[in-house]
Amino acid sequence: MFDEILKHIEEVIQLNDLEKERFTSILVRKKLCKKQFLIQEGDLVRYEYFVASGCLKAYEVDDNGDEHIMQFAKENWWISDFKAFFEGGKATLNIDSIEESVVYGIEKQDLEDLFLDVPKFDRFFRIKLTSAFVALQNRILSSLDKSNSDRYLDFQKTYPNLEQRVPNYMIANYLGIKPESLSRIRKNLVKG
Amino acid sequence: MFDEILKHIEEVIQLNDLEKERFTSILVRKKLCKKQFLIQEGDLVRYEYFVASGCLKAYEVDDNGDEHIMQFAKENWWISDFKAFFEGGKATLNIDSIEESVVYGIEKQDLEDLFLDVPKFDRFFRIKLTSAFVALQNRILSSLDKSNSDRYLDFQKTYPNLEQRVPNYMIANYLGIKPESLSRIRKNLVKG
Repeated sequence: MFDEILKHIEEVIQLNDLEKERFTSILVRKKLCKKQFLIQEGDLVRYEYFVASGCLKAYEVDDNGDEHIMQFAKENWWISDFKAFFEGGKATLNIDSIEESVVYGIEKQDLEDLFLDVPKFDRFFRIKLTSAFVALQNRILSSLDKSNSDRYLDFQKTYPNLEQRVPNYMIANYLGIKPESLSRIRKNLVKG
Repeated sequence: MFDEILKHIEEVIQLNDLEKERFTSILVRKKLCKKQFLIQEGDLVRYEYFVASGCLKAYEVDDNGDEHIMQFAKENWWISDFKAFFEGGKATLNIDSIEESVVYGIEKQDLEDLFLDVPKFDRFFRIKLTSAFVALQNRILSSLDKSNSDRYLDFQKTYPNLEQRVPNYMIANYLGIKPESLSRIRKNLVKG
């Protein structure tokens, strides 16, 4: 049952059977239907989540009720309202499922205890956070000075094979452009 | 000589004398005049840097020659072209000093060896990267749906007491607005 997440962890650190048991004992499995909320704005955020299957999105809703997509997460990604999770406080993000999904949640205190009991998880999350940090920095740089077309190519690189699973209007939203502009960009790229 | 950086580390993890020596032995001290480059676009990026004193900025230059400021760093911040540093490859960022500055560089391989020899540095950087990740995510969210005025307040929160040390046009650049707009925002905030 925990095959995916253990495989994901063991790509970075090796665990013995006891450590595997210690780790999986803190995981809380959650199954989501399509369009089900995992976190809603205003919630206390107790968990960060590993996506075992399916696909989710994290987004803000502005004062006009418009959504702004911050992040997608498919298999092997981690997702949460990380600010609220790490710093305490209430969610400013909403997270819901684009497809039927299975996630494993880890509670903050369980995670802190895990770091003390099995310090190699510090290493695991240090390495994962490094990639996540670089990916976010790329997203900022790409928004600062790249054309919409280049930003679309960056999206494809960041989320390989996600495009077929996510409606166009969500990808356009993530890029901060109109769906019509996304269609135009795609056509131009096909033409080469 | 290494007081600042050791103090910075020991706010998160405790080090014995041997570990302190092990750590400081890999630090390379570098003094920068005002406006001196630390990293230039196209460089191989061998070091990440801790700022012991002074203030620097990291920015991209677009095809029109316009600068886009990605990050400021003052005392106790870390700065580098992290993508190039962690993943290898050449810098896409420029980093230069806004004030006369002193930084400590750590080479990639030295850092990897340090993690293996003194694993509690995994913990240190895991915790630092968590804050850095949350800060970047805030910056993205703030650009997605906040007013320029709120984004200016976010800048003040992210970089307390930096405003007096950095020219206005750089703050405006970081926010992606015109210097005149920044003056207007400030006036309106003072009026309340």
